[in-house]
Amino acid sequence: MVQAIMKKEMPKPTIERLCLIYGFLEDLLESGKKATSSVEIGEMLGIGAHSVRKDINFLGEIGNTKQGYEVEKLKNAIGETLGLEKPRNTCIVGLGKLGTAILNNLTISDGKYRIMAGFDSNINKVETMKAPVDLYPAYEMENIIKQKQIELAILSVSADAAQETAENLIESGIKGIVNFAPVVIHSPRPDVSIRNLDITGELRLLSAYIETKTGVVE
Amino acid sequence: MVQAIMKKEMPKPTIERLCLIYGFLEDLLESGKKATSSVEIGEMLGIGAHSVRKDINFLGEIGNTKQGYEVEKLKNAIGETLGLEKPRNTCIVGLGKLGTAILNNLTISDGKYRIMAGFDSNINKVETMKAPVDLYPAYEMENIIKQKQIELAILSVSADAAQETAENLIESGIKGIVNFAPVVIHSPRPDVSIRNLDITGELRLLSAYIETKTGVVE
Repeated sequence: MVQAIMKKEMPKPTIERLCLIYGFLEDLLESGKKATSSVEIGEMLGIGAHSVRKDINFLGEIGNTKQGYEVEKLKNAIGETLGLEKPRNTCIVGLGKLGTAILNNLTISDGKYRIMAGFDSNINKVETMKAPVDLYPAYEMENIIKQKQIELAILSVSADAAQETAENLIESGIKGIVNFAPVVIHSPRPDVSIRNLDITGELRLLSAYIETKTGVVE
Repeated sequence: MVQAIMKKEMPKPTIERLCLIYGFLEDLLESGKKATSSVEIGEMLGIGAHSVRKDINFLGEIGNTKQGYEVEKLKNAIGETLGLEKPRNTCIVGLGKLGTAILNNLTISDGKYRIMAGFDSNINKVETMKAPVDLYPAYEMENIIKQKQIELAILSVSADAAQETAENLIESGIKGIVNFAPVVIHSPRPDVSIRNLDITGELRLLSAYIETKTGVVE
């Protein structure tokens, strides 16, 4: 009950930072490190140790800050609070070069976000392409998403198809979208988030930083 | 002179939003629209019209807010202030599936960020792979970056090579990096920005939003 209240009140930047910390802790665990500190975490992520401690405080009792944190315990606490240990079924929509590359990469590299299906409007491609997961024509999206309980979608369709496709996905039950189409799309529903990862947009932002000499480390 | 002062004082969120607005205006121009308003821009980007007007005020005199903005004039003003009309030479480092997909996509889709080179530590791959740009072994990075005046790098190496490669790139003169390696890397220099676009990290954040029922539209 207490945790439910905390979750609700957790600010968005805290959720974002805890997700980053979780990834860092995963790396630490893999390299065999057992303990860490808010200073070390802060340095790795380019944020202040004070912010790190404040974020971790949202998790409840974790351990003595002065003596640092147990990597595994902290990772588990973040994972439990933010639901990061739960596998989430994922699909890829748009099987061009980028979509196909992501499909092949992710299926190999990560077990938690299980790619359950790939969709493309080109029926011929769907029928002939070799892939590590089942491929379906776009018109089967709603059926398959419901049937396979898919929650997340990676969108790599063309710019002009992105917004409409995203809306179809959300109507079919998708709860979060990573958008790679080179256009900013927005969610029609406040309870569904879209993360726009436009490569050209990122290059543009870096150009602006260069031009304005804005020193930003992210 | 006045502009130089403005640039320096422009807050980071304003730079980010102006970059997004620029992309939206590009889309509008392509679809033939000549005029827009802070309300329309705000709705498209999921930010308030007031913020939009405040950001645009940083550009100096642009036009009457009540009557809306001329799309082309506004786009040019943002582009000039943030240096977005300048071509920037770009390279791709790491020619796995994802790097290769980005290389093929970007070279076709965008003229401003010209991919001038691809690098990979696998010399055999560099020599045999077909690509629309010249490919080089990793040890030639510094030479080629200086020779071709490359400012931006897209990093798609493995997680454990990412930080070191980024540092090498920055020492070679790279001023901004988009990182696709599944690890958060940080810039050793305050004047060089790194944008971490970790797909697994994005899926993780979406999972956290689902779990905490954080309604965030981005």
